[in-house]
Amino acid sequence: MRQKLRAAAAVVGTFGLVAAPAALAEEGMWTFDNFPAERMQAQMGWAPDQPWLDRVMSATARLPGCSASNVSEAGLVLTNHHCVVACVTSLSTAENNYLEHGFMAQTREEELRCPNLTLDVLTSIRDVTADIETATAGVAPEDFARARDAEFARLVSDCARAGTRCEVVTLYQGGRYGLYEYRTFSDVRLVFAPEHSMAAFGGDTDNFNFPRYCLDFSFLRLYSAGRPAATPNHLDMRFTPLTDDEIVLISGNPGRTSRLRTTAELEFERDVNLPWQIETLGDLRDRLTAYSALGPEQERIASSTLQTVQNSFKGLAGRRQALADPAGLAHVAERQADLQQRVRRNRMATREVADAWGEIERAQTAYRGMFYEYQYLEQRAGDRSLLFAWARDLVRGATERDRPDAERLARYTDARVPAITQGLRANRSIAPSFEELHLAFWLSEVRERLPANNQAVRQILGTESPEALAHRLSQSRLSDPAYRMQLWQGGAAAIAQSDDPMIVFVRNWDGEARAVRERYVSQVEGPVALAQERIARARFRAFGDTQYPDATFSPRITYGRVTGWSEPGGRVVGPFAHTEGLYERSTGTSPFVLSERWADARGRLDPRGIFNVATSTDVIGGNSGGPLLDREGDVVGAVFDGNVHLLGGEYFYDGALNRSVTVTSTIIHTALSDVYGMHALVAEIEGR
Amino acid sequence: MRQKLRAAAAVVGTFGLVAAPAALAEEGMWTFDNFPAERMQAQMGWAPDQPWLDRVMSATARLPGCSASNVSEAGLVLTNHHCVVACVTSLSTAENNYLEHGFMAQTREEELRCPNLTLDVLTSIRDVTADIETATAGVAPEDFARARDAEFARLVSDCARAGTRCEVVTLYQGGRYGLYEYRTFSDVRLVFAPEHSMAAFGGDTDNFNFPRYCLDFSFLRLYSAGRPAATPNHLDMRFTPLTDDEIVLISGNPGRTSRLRTTAELEFERDVNLPWQIETLGDLRDRLTAYSALGPEQERIASSTLQTVQNSFKGLAGRRQALADPAGLAHVAERQADLQQRVRRNRMATREVADAWGEIERAQTAYRGMFYEYQYLEQRAGDRSLLFAWARDLVRGATERDRPDAERLARYTDARVPAITQGLRANRSIAPSFEELHLAFWLSEVRERLPANNQAVRQILGTESPEALAHRLSQSRLSDPAYRMQLWQGGAAAIAQSDDPMIVFVRNWDGEARAVRERYVSQVEGPVALAQERIARARFRAFGDTQYPDATFSPRITYGRVTGWSEPGGRVVGPFAHTEGLYERSTGTSPFVLSERWADARGRLDPRGIFNVATSTDVIGGNSGGPLLDREGDVVGAVFDGNVHLLGGEYFYDGALNRSVTVTSTIIHTALSDVYGMHALVAEIEGR
Repeated sequence: MRQKLRAAAAVVGTFGLVAAPAALAEEGMWTFDNFPAERMQAQMGWAPDQPWLDRVMSATARLPGCSASNVSEAGLVLTNHHCVVACVTSLSTAENNYLEHGFMAQTREEELRCPNLTLDVLTSIRDVTADIETATAGVAPEDFARARDAEFARLVSDCARAGTRCEVVTLYQGGRYGLYEYRTFSDVRLVFAPEHSMAAFGGDTDNFNFPRYCLDFSFLRLYSAGRPAATPNHLDMRFTPLTDDEIVLISGNPGRTSRLRTTAELEFERDVNLPWQIETLGDLRDRLTAYSALGPEQERIASSTLQTVQNSFKGLAGRRQALADPAGLAHVAERQADLQQRVRRNRMATREVADAWGEIERAQTAYRGMFYEYQYLEQRAGDRSLLFAWARDLVRGATERDRPDAERLARYTDARVPAITQGLRANRSIAPSFEELHLAFWLSEVRERLPANNQAVRQILGTESPEALAHRLSQSRLSDPAYRMQLWQGGAAAIAQSDDPMIVFVRNWDGEARAVRERYVSQVEGPVALAQERIARARFRAFGDTQYPDATFSPRITYGRVTGWSEPGGRVVGPFAHTEGLYERSTGTSPFVLSERWADARGRLDPRGIFNVATSTDVIGGNSGGPLLDREGDVVGAVFDGNVHLLGGEYFYDGALNRSVTVTSTIIHTALSDVYGMHALVAEIEGR
Repeated sequence: MRQKLRAAAAVVGTFGLVAAPAALAEEGMWTFDNFPAERMQAQMGWAPDQPWLDRVMSATARLPGCSASNVSEAGLVLTNHHCVVACVTSLSTAENNYLEHGFMAQTREEELRCPNLTLDVLTSIRDVTADIETATAGVAPEDFARARDAEFARLVSDCARAGTRCEVVTLYQGGRYGLYEYRTFSDVRLVFAPEHSMAAFGGDTDNFNFPRYCLDFSFLRLYSAGRPAATPNHLDMRFTPLTDDEIVLISGNPGRTSRLRTTAELEFERDVNLPWQIETLGDLRDRLTAYSALGPEQERIASSTLQTVQNSFKGLAGRRQALADPAGLAHVAERQADLQQRVRRNRMATREVADAWGEIERAQTAYRGMFYEYQYLEQRAGDRSLLFAWARDLVRGATERDRPDAERLARYTDARVPAITQGLRANRSIAPSFEELHLAFWLSEVRERLPANNQAVRQILGTESPEALAHRLSQSRLSDPAYRMQLWQGGAAAIAQSDDPMIVFVRNWDGEARAVRERYVSQVEGPVALAQERIARARFRAFGDTQYPDATFSPRITYGRVTGWSEPGGRVVGPFAHTEGLYERSTGTSPFVLSERWADARGRLDPRGIFNVATSTDVIGGNSGGPLLDREGDVVGAVFDGNVHLLGGEYFYDGALNRSVTVTSTIIHTALSDVYGMHALVAEIEGR
């Protein structure tokens, strides 16, 4: 019989965005100690009790960028395939390509340890808000961050024990702080992974689409002292089909949301930042494609950058599209107006918040005026050129290290110098032609997007063409780590004397770049941060923890239903993707190619079996691999993605459109028993 | 002494967008017979009188896609270099590359005739609104277009004489009609063209940027009976510098504007259509780049498509950016609200307009729901594949020609069948691999953007990969014109029997494609057209011809000032680009390369000479080459472009940002006398 697994998990302070109008039923990434059970009961007619929540908490885990659940008493962990792809790759050899053919340990002895993979299970949370407040009481504003960080460090250091990890989590933009203690498992072994082509079926083409047919699951096992960890508090898996409209929940670690952003900021994203990113990435992709076509060596050099760039498109386009949906932004505006009204009703809040929204709006206007300058001279100067990045660290580091620590740019403070030194010393091989590509891309953009009569632009471009200049700079001796260390150790004098083309180049207009940075910090970043802090305080005053905090890659729970959605314009999408659809969508060509096992199994499988499912739960990147749960707390799948509207979830949750997408326990069971013949594993997840 | 040139021009009925709030001073592409002299006088303190307008009218000309002015008594015409590039190219030989080195006729004998170039000069306009109204009175709505077009044909046919061209121009969406008679010059000779690198200095990088340094001018000469045409009513050129804030006007033929669009339509453009175009064109560009890299033959095949695609980017991005500027859309909303208020004050108008704005808005929502389906199954099906286009004409044509003419799709009515036949018969060589590229691009988009469970998508894609399917289809025998004609003549029976892969493919899902088209026509196109007509009538009722009609590539005049602008965010851009800037921006590498003549001339030239100038006149594509005029009616330059904000001019004019960009008469004079040594030409334009 199955038992609950032990891998502990615990709880955090809480709060939330807006005690919002009724429509937003499923919104919220709630901390486990502040679950809105009454609200859910009223909305859905059912809600979990605290034992239910405690049990789920203690069976949810975190791995790098992902989430997971414990599903057997012997340390078995269910997560996504895409969460373990690095492990699968590093275990593969020329003879055993587990990425291509899958990994299937029929016995415990065949389970292989994932190098460098650590899994965290939360064991306790303590509210340390009072500690932080005491430590920072009476501290001058400019010293606040330092005092707070020192207290963070003290709390973490006091908490640390062998086999655990402690961290202070900032919730509600500083309205609350939690000290989280995790038990860490550093011996994590791979049990099962399907073929990559099945896990990522449809590839980038189907990414964010639905219906969807991804077998994006895998099993790991936690080991302790060389033996499978005993995990009595695990969750059960359920293999009966999900039903339409059924209540479900998802537990996991949502990574980051920005749901307190104002309408002015989101309009800036929609109108300036995202379109610019999409347009320029298109140009870069074009250059990378042309470069790859030069030969196999160039193809190899460009491949990972090209893939990153290609993968970014759909995400960026989806975020832009979400912001372009009038309903989404209207919803944010409504919340904002609601909070503004509450603030106006309270004299102290009115005085404290003052014109925070106006300040943010004006900062966005200022940003519009300096956006390209800031991006091209400072933030993204040099594009992805390593030579440029090294040169800037050398040039700036030389000046900054001569200053008192407190007056330096944050990157060059004593605490961070070792990391820079390490970066400069590391022996990284670079391809000058690839450096040249990135430099030429960046310089062309400078020439095109910045005004011809801008002083810095003239200094950057001189009268060379972007291509000639990029070529010249790519010949820099900074490719040699010994030369880099010589300049780093030589400090300001060495920099001033260097005749290396890249050093000379960066040195010549670093003053202008710093000036743009200062303008950005003083007119955009600074004012926005201060105004947002005041808004966050007002919000916390108004709502306290009746709302949820922005995502922080710490354990949360969200609820919703099994449900499809209606596209704007009317197309109705149902909640289920059935097995037959997998076969209809396959073409024999990547990314729509079935593995041999799946091609062979077709006749044995129920064509109406539920493969992937859409639910109205509120998740975001970091939730991947986390369990989809039914009312019993049983695992009915592992969430791995969302529809395209989920991309807007960074900014707001739209209950009519935002859908999570999960690989179901039913298809996992079918796969293991009828396709892969993993009978021992099936017995284990069945609790036999 | 100079005389006014004779090439006649005349006048049209008029009207306009909105007797709008004061801020929009410089807005308007006015017809010459309805110039708002009182308004301009009130705004600018000066306005031209009717003789001034008549004189300018009669010296403005039209050539394909462009405008021009007469600037000597011997038929000399000033226009842009980019308006004559086809002529320069076709006159070039291996020995004489006039595009690269320029064309400089020192004597009349050296002037070369531009093949197929015709220049139109308007000689008269007659208001034929009453004729059209009589011809269409009492006609049922479904027969209206046919009756109107028949009357158009009658009027044109009655008007036609040797050496003239007649056309009916629809103004105010049918509020007024003008019969335009042009004198046509078909013997037009090239007199002078600078080097392409100077005319297009900065290329696509600087396109829509300012300051700008393009020597984008050329001279043509009109010939009549083999001799230079006598043009006594020409305009003078002025060579003294323009001054900041000086009043200027531009005469020419703006091509197309859509300034009566509603906010709902513009939001659709901003949020759906333009981003989609930008994103997909990026993907296509990427494929074209990779294809070009395969070898010189592929590079040749792809070059013109690649260039077209690359050129589209900046225009699309600029239009998107203009719509993303909150001020622009707010301005359209304000106008719309103003008109709605006027309508509400008038019972008859209220009844007639009914819920036209709501209908358009609902149509946009419906369009959002079918946008991708309509684009990929119908509007852009097959992308740029000729094989696909032929197959669709063959398949549809076979069915349609069996129907009564009145019931056919417009493309297949008897009147248009000859053009289709000609297209099918023409001997066009195609590259199967290039066809494959376009088909694969389109099919990949179908797979990615349309839902997997859509019926038509399943029929299109089957279980082949887009690549395999594209390859198979690219082998179609339709590349052979004889086979195409055989199918065309064989009609429905031949189509039904064909086993050609492309014919079979198109045939299989043509029903679905037609169904999408029908939905589009009935839910989007039709309702929008009807609602817009009612809005246009209401607008005409409210404002009559106190406003200007949308651009129709017929003669118009606009006024404004020499002035820079302030970018949103604060950067101030002055109105002048000086000669010194040209030298500072040159790099020796395309597109910033100086010709030898210009490199040599640097020391002889005034660095502060005005090269290009920005003005607040309201122009759009088609105005290129038209004269920039001062208060005396003298030509102070040839407009050739705008700043990036001009791209929004398709939808609205933003007086704070929209700027025309002109190559000045001063730099033209400097170039001819101090760089090119064109002394006879200088004497001619000086009127000596």
